[in-house]
Amino acid sequence: MPTPPVLHDLYAAAERIRPYILSTPLLESPHINEICGGRVLIKAEPLQRTGSFKFRGAFNTLSQLGDDAKDGGVVAYSSGNHAQGVAAAAEILGLPCVIVMPEDAPAIKIANTRSYGAEVVTYDRYSDIREEIGARISDERGAVLIKPYDDPRIIAGQGTVGLEIAQQMRDLDLIPDAVLVPCGGGGLISGVALAIHHAFSQAKIYSVEPEKYDDTRQSIDAGVRKQVDITTPSICDALLAPTPGELTFAVNKKLLTGGLVVSDGEAGEAMRQAFSRLKLVVEPGGAVALAAALSNKYDCAGKTVCVVCSGGNVDSKLYAEILSAG
Amino acid sequence: MPTPPVLHDLYAAAERIRPYILSTPLLESPHINEICGGRVLIKAEPLQRTGSFKFRGAFNTLSQLGDDAKDGGVVAYSSGNHAQGVAAAAEILGLPCVIVMPEDAPAIKIANTRSYGAEVVTYDRYSDIREEIGARISDERGAVLIKPYDDPRIIAGQGTVGLEIAQQMRDLDLIPDAVLVPCGGGGLISGVALAIHHAFSQAKIYSVEPEKYDDTRQSIDAGVRKQVDITTPSICDALLAPTPGELTFAVNKKLLTGGLVVSDGEAGEAMRQAFSRLKLVVEPGGAVALAAALSNKYDCAGKTVCVVCSGGNVDSKLYAEILSAG
Repeated sequence: MPTPPVLHDLYAAAERIRPYILSTPLLESPHINEICGGRVLIKAEPLQRTGSFKFRGAFNTLSQLGDDAKDGGVVAYSSGNHAQGVAAAAEILGLPCVIVMPEDAPAIKIANTRSYGAEVVTYDRYSDIREEIGARISDERGAVLIKPYDDPRIIAGQGTVGLEIAQQMRDLDLIPDAVLVPCGGGGLISGVALAIHHAFSQAKIYSVEPEKYDDTRQSIDAGVRKQVDITTPSICDALLAPTPGELTFAVNKKLLTGGLVVSDGEAGEAMRQAFSRLKLVVEPGGAVALAAALSNKYDCAGKTVCVVCSGGNVDSKLYAEILSAG
Repeated sequence: MPTPPVLHDLYAAAERIRPYILSTPLLESPHINEICGGRVLIKAEPLQRTGSFKFRGAFNTLSQLGDDAKDGGVVAYSSGNHAQGVAAAAEILGLPCVIVMPEDAPAIKIANTRSYGAEVVTYDRYSDIREEIGARISDERGAVLIKPYDDPRIIAGQGTVGLEIAQQMRDLDLIPDAVLVPCGGGGLISGVALAIHHAFSQAKIYSVEPEKYDDTRQSIDAGVRKQVDITTPSICDALLAPTPGELTFAVNKKLLTGGLVVSDGEAGEAMRQAFSRLKLVVEPGGAVALAAALSNKYDCAGKTVCVVCSGGNVDSKLYAEILSAG
């Protein structure tokens, strides 16, 4: 049974991925500060290679596989951002790659995954079990299964977002009162929490989830992993995990202050603010932490708050609709 | 008569503005590289404070005014990006500020300019002469007129974009074969050219202008400043200067290899690529240099090319239309 990564693993991941990633900027807008009543620093992971933070964990994991993946390559299941991260990492490392994606995933995510040379196998989100499809392909082809979050190498890779935030805040002479992070299975926030807790031990760390998909909030409140019904539609396609990961929750139940929840409408408003104030394209799931700040789910008044915008892979049609709804 | 800045002035500007600006990232996309057939590095100035590079020159200039502007403040004329740059710099420095803007400027640019505390005076782009309105306000109020490009302090400030590009290329161990820069009055490209020519003396430097507004290209070809008719509509509202500046052209005629021209449709396609591949919101005028690379106006095959995306202040309605047209 693997155990969660420790700080040293995050630094090792940072070394491994450095030549391949963008150290994304920490953006700030006086208008967003004014709306929130505090100072809000926004980590811009949509600018990351593949359009989300997922490339960090994927490359960190794939680059450590060695001979295990030489022949059979890798297989992953994902709604789209992990898919692109794994596919892009596999392409760089010259590994065969199969990705199992829901057939209703955003078209841009399926097309981009294919463009990195991966084979895409689709499934029905409501009737098929993606873990089983992934396991079958792994057996048949001898491919190494790359889990989306419940893997210490994935968590360590995503945690490099937190290492960068810590350094960027120090460069600005700022200490965060709180850090807000989008949360699906919890890979990003558990990695970020490890880095932030070390750098700023007093900072409060909150997961942010879409309404009805608040499994991490419920699990933190209960102290054990809870499961939610995943049949309600949400525009936040990147965050629709039914339950926290085992490893991610082991970290999160120790380090997180609590969980916040935002509506699809609040995520859309955050996307519009990111468009007009930051010039940053953010996808619905990537915008929930910014949404929590803008909608006062976390009260930023007089505080210094770091917000992670985690991805920007949104279809142009949906994006145009959301801009027009403002 | 002022003279163009020299390299030392750019370094001094960089020191002056450093605490207030974002050192914007140099983005790269394998998809854009594939379309262009070379390696394309994209300087992301839409992420800059106020949504364009213009804040750099504005702050560099306003921070040197001293007592001259203490009572009367500053006045500027601008289609919108210089307006926001001057207004934001004036707000930081506590100076009164009046901005003269065309009444058909993008609503987002007028609203943002006001949000920085500036008074906005509008004029008719086709019948009024903005320089005269600016001069009158300057006389009446004792306000210092901040020209949009033909000022050595402005050029030096914009040139810090070039200093950053040079450092970022060195960090990547890359030498650019060419640098493509959007061009209106020529402030940005003349500043960038001073920095790039010093760092990479063999790099070719091209201005990129919208169709019908290719006054810099015509002027470079002729060796003297030419004027174009500015009554043709263009979506590239930031680049509609009728003629190069005196100071900017003095630099550009020496350092530029030539001028390129793109259509509104090509600018729109570049905006869509920046949306889907870079997650960067770019306004039409800000996208013309990327458009020149994507549309093969500059042949990137086998080359390393730097492209400046200069701004991202575009109304959401137009942006949604351009996304939908793809």
